[in-house]
Amino acid sequence: MDRFDIAIIGTGPAGLEAAITAKIRNKKILLIGNKDLSLKVKKAHLIKNYLGIPEISGEKLADNFERHLSDMEIEITEDKISSVYAMGDYFALQGADVMYEADSVILATGVVLEKAYPGEQEFLGRGVSYCATCDAPLYKDKTVAVIGYSQKEEAEAAFLCEVCEKVYYLPMYGGATPTDKAAIKIPTVKENIEIITDKPKEIKGGMKADVLITSGAELKVDGIFILRESVAPSQLVPGLATEDNHVKVNRKLETSIAGCFACGDITGAPYQYIKAAGEGNVAALSAVAYLDEKKRKG
Amino acid sequence: MDRFDIAIIGTGPAGLEAAITAKIRNKKILLIGNKDLSLKVKKAHLIKNYLGIPEISGEKLADNFERHLSDMEIEITEDKISSVYAMGDYFALQGADVMYEADSVILATGVVLEKAYPGEQEFLGRGVSYCATCDAPLYKDKTVAVIGYSQKEEAEAAFLCEVCEKVYYLPMYGGATPTDKAAIKIPTVKENIEIITDKPKEIKGGMKADVLITSGAELKVDGIFILRESVAPSQLVPGLATEDNHVKVNRKLETSIAGCFACGDITGAPYQYIKAAGEGNVAALSAVAYLDEKKRKG
Repeated sequence: MDRFDIAIIGTGPAGLEAAITAKIRNKKILLIGNKDLSLKVKKAHLIKNYLGIPEISGEKLADNFERHLSDMEIEITEDKISSVYAMGDYFALQGADVMYEADSVILATGVVLEKAYPGEQEFLGRGVSYCATCDAPLYKDKTVAVIGYSQKEEAEAAFLCEVCEKVYYLPMYGGATPTDKAAIKIPTVKENIEIITDKPKEIKGGMKADVLITSGAELKVDGIFILRESVAPSQLVPGLATEDNHVKVNRKLETSIAGCFACGDITGAPYQYIKAAGEGNVAALSAVAYLDEKKRKG
Repeated sequence: MDRFDIAIIGTGPAGLEAAITAKIRNKKILLIGNKDLSLKVKKAHLIKNYLGIPEISGEKLADNFERHLSDMEIEITEDKISSVYAMGDYFALQGADVMYEADSVILATGVVLEKAYPGEQEFLGRGVSYCATCDAPLYKDKTVAVIGYSQKEEAEAAFLCEVCEKVYYLPMYGGATPTDKAAIKIPTVKENIEIITDKPKEIKGGMKADVLITSGAELKVDGIFILRESVAPSQLVPGLATEDNHVKVNRKLETSIAGCFACGDITGAPYQYIKAAGEGNVAALSAVAYLDEKKRKG
């Protein structure tokens, strides 16, 4: 397997700047995230305080970023990392279908605005999963609930329909109300999906999670998939020190795990493009220093 | 006297970004430094890692910065601050001819690469000065040495020639060697200046500094002016906590003095444009939060 020098997770300004800086320093990088940068910035208001680019729409700024990447021949690997494991000497990153390896990791996945559900952390790995591709086989011919935070999770739900007996799908986007239900079209062969527009409230169970309590009902299930845009940092990297749902970092953007760095919104407010980019630069240079030191020690 | 909300000292990327962010937040700002931004970046190599601006010369990036300032109607007050005093409720800033007042201060003066001379800190205020305009009257009809770190200090030396009996001028720029001597033309009326190309080594004295030891001689003087591009942070703000000649800051870019923030190279490596700009953003927002809290408390 290819072993990268630096794996960078996230393609917002922090991840992109980290990639650019690491590439300039001749490191073998893996940049993982969403290729469509503009998706991430569509929500952005007019940006007025990105020094050097007087007044720009999020869309146009994303174009600038894309040009910067292509000028420097940096590719984005389209994937979603569900877990990062510190293996001592290197890191293993769990993608949807493949595992990646890297000597150091930079977390730049942005802020997770959603709080964990009661029971979520308790039952993680025991009925609660963040990755349909990884864990679907565990629920063959069983009943699962899927809490999807963006439209693209509908494809994950469709995939689960192929494997499972029954799938409850709870859309958390687009202000889904009973009237919106018709708008959600999940192409399934078996017609074994049920759209639920109640809001999830709590996960309960014994040895394993077996009930999803919603605002309107109690769903008996064998498993619950929670598919968020970003995974909470403490779930993404087991053992990582966090503070108020942000990754704890020092001024060098080192986290509590040697070789693991973080930058951008994931490290805390202010949630600003130029702050994120500045931190991406620092995190990359800290990772470079870490690699150099590691090499020196043999 | 006008009381500003935020005084920002320094017109590199950190200071400029801080000014832009503070202006957007409707604060009354004073941005002090060098109007000719390009002077500061002339030395810059081709910049490749300022995300969003693929590959740009220092000169052109400075043009972008200038356009950003003019678009936002931000003016630079051309002055050099020699001291910042924490007055409890506000800050007093000593300019060349005037004093400024502000409720909060952001230090963005860049890194001071030069180490203090032996004796410099000991005799500061007792024969050692950083400001010709401020302290010239103390040396009327006396002998002074001027250690100038940039060509523009020649004007300061010329001014001291008008006041003092004799001025030794030690240029620390342009690799001044005896052959370069002729290149330094300081227009004086009294012809009482002597260009010395030896390097300063140490400052000695009793109650006051009275000798400047150079690599070739011992100059008997009544005062020594050390005119650097930036003043060392601990000298700029008496009482400010520093670490390896950098201002000690936390993640919010708060310094050891409430209401005083720092950003950019002055806070330490890496010395990079995008890192400095990112920190300018954070420092400005921290200053805004400080002012809001101060207002709330009445």
